[in-house]
Amino acid sequence: MRQQVEEYITSLQEQIVSAFEALDPKAPAFKRDSWTRAQGGLGQSCVFSMPADDPSGHSSILEKAGVNISIVHGTLPPAAIKQMKADHSSLPYDPDAQTTLPFFAAGLSIVIHPRNPHAPTTHANYRYFEVTAPDDPRAVLAWWFGGGGDLTPSYLYDADAAHFHGTLKAACDAHGAAYYPALKRWCDEYFYIPHRGEARGVGGLFFDDLCDAPHARIPGSGRTADGIFAFVRALGDAFVPSYLPILARRAHTPYTPQQRRWQLVRRGRYVEFNLVYDRGTKFGLMTPGARVESILMTLPENVRWEYMCDMGGEGTEEGRLVEVLTKPREWV
Amino acid sequence: MRQQVEEYITSLQEQIVSAFEALDPKAPAFKRDSWTRAQGGLGQSCVFSMPADDPSGHSSILEKAGVNISIVHGTLPPAAIKQMKADHSSLPYDPDAQTTLPFFAAGLSIVIHPRNPHAPTTHANYRYFEVTAPDDPRAVLAWWFGGGGDLTPSYLYDADAAHFHGTLKAACDAHGAAYYPALKRWCDEYFYIPHRGEARGVGGLFFDDLCDAPHARIPGSGRTADGIFAFVRALGDAFVPSYLPILARRAHTPYTPQQRRWQLVRRGRYVEFNLVYDRGTKFGLMTPGARVESILMTLPENVRWEYMCDMGGEGTEEGRLVEVLTKPREWV
Repeated sequence: MRQQVEEYITSLQEQIVSAFEALDPKAPAFKRDSWTRAQGGLGQSCVFSMPADDPSGHSSILEKAGVNISIVHGTLPPAAIKQMKADHSSLPYDPDAQTTLPFFAAGLSIVIHPRNPHAPTTHANYRYFEVTAPDDPRAVLAWWFGGGGDLTPSYLYDADAAHFHGTLKAACDAHGAAYYPALKRWCDEYFYIPHRGEARGVGGLFFDDLCDAPHARIPGSGRTADGIFAFVRALGDAFVPSYLPILARRAHTPYTPQQRRWQLVRRGRYVEFNLVYDRGTKFGLMTPGARVESILMTLPENVRWEYMCDMGGEGTEEGRLVEVLTKPREWV
Repeated sequence: MRQQVEEYITSLQEQIVSAFEALDPKAPAFKRDSWTRAQGGLGQSCVFSMPADDPSGHSSILEKAGVNISIVHGTLPPAAIKQMKADHSSLPYDPDAQTTLPFFAAGLSIVIHPRNPHAPTTHANYRYFEVTAPDDPRAVLAWWFGGGGDLTPSYLYDADAAHFHGTLKAACDAHGAAYYPALKRWCDEYFYIPHRGEARGVGGLFFDDLCDAPHARIPGSGRTADGIFAFVRALGDAFVPSYLPILARRAHTPYTPQQRRWQLVRRGRYVEFNLVYDRGTKFGLMTPGARVESILMTLPENVRWEYMCDMGGEGTEEGRLVEVLTKPREWV
């Protein structure tokens, strides 16, 4: 499975980056950075940004974007094993023996921040995790997939949210009717900012710990590894069709300085979620030897915080977004 | 003590706001917002920002600033009491009885983000905390002061750091030679961003749990409440002389778009510290009924995150700052 996942995310990364590059051929190419981790592993970050002193005057569709893969291995400390055991009972854990276990993790992470306030931000992540026996890397003690994707507009276009959810739902439904409702609800719960009392965006899918044992949140789950990998591939393959048509139709919408301002304020909420609540970011920042630039690549380029921002009131276009963030909706 | 602290921070707030307003008479006044907390307490936020659609064309000295006081009371849950007992042995704590205790907290918080990249950001906070018996609000079980202040430049001017530290040291020294070295070191430890391996800025003072019992970090500590309050007042009074002369001499320095860009990137680190590590912010965001707008008032208005920013290299002005952030210096 390791090799299959590696091959899949490597080819998906290239496919996604090419799709964005084809959409805006005058913009610079994504910058491809390969890196290795001293503690074990490697990755490739493909990141888009405009040079700060770009003389071309080209207004790129994307403002900042990253499509990153990482394939790392290392050793899980006892505290991490204890936590993972709750969802994976096959893991051995003895509170008295300070046992550590080898792990392998491979994943693809995507964050797209377009420049135009009418074009939504999107994020997706698909990952495979494996824990093996201390003495034999081929003896897999536990494995699971996790991932999902969500859409974060500054201005609400119902048709965009419906297209995004509809595409993901179709990809889910081909693998079982239980997936979409369960993963949609999980996404609404996960991408939530408690101190603001609002969702990060209009949701999408979220899941973790998907393996061959039945999953408490997903009725009828407990497929084979091949079956789950096929499901995850369906979601990964759905990324471009779920998002690119939205970006293409909103990227050139005329906008006012006020609309840009609102977009930057909304991006502040995005940063608040990622730095205060996002488990992946927190885990990454605590990991010794982690590549901080790749973890924080998710943060938008330009962001704004206003005290008591006067935008977003009832009866305004901005207010329509705020309303839907406080009351998650069914989009398909 | 409650009333004395209330009176002091209320008058200091007005004095500080007036000093900034006098420095830039053409800019709008600070916006004064009084608020009450449903769970008990009140406050006044004095916040500066330029209107987003300001027609005057005035380039204000400050970009965003807040000088806030809050005077709140409520009930400490057992977990909070347990944590506080480590530093305040007079607090009763019985792990079996789920006892709660009334608390009172009054504090002044200052954050100043100037517009000019050559003028440093500063922050200060002074607070008084009291825990009382469940049945008698006049029976004080424990009390302490906390606070400090620090300076966060984007460009390093040694003379500014020396003036800031020198002014705070003089205020400390009048109350005992042990204060400055202990509180300076504590500040360097506290305002540190582990995932970046750098300090937030050039430091200042930081302390907490200062009461009539000897403090483990401060040799010869353990003064009377009046003695400690006099010390805290000396620090509060030192805010304006420690910072305003720096702001006045840097506010009109000519700057390039590149220097502005560097300032916005450095502000990203400021946000990372506040949202990921700052105890006050985390405590605030978790507190039911807390006024989120006042807590997050500390975040700068315009912020920027770049992937693998090419500024800050060795031999540059930006690199001089980065070097001092990785190796804290003695400034006086």
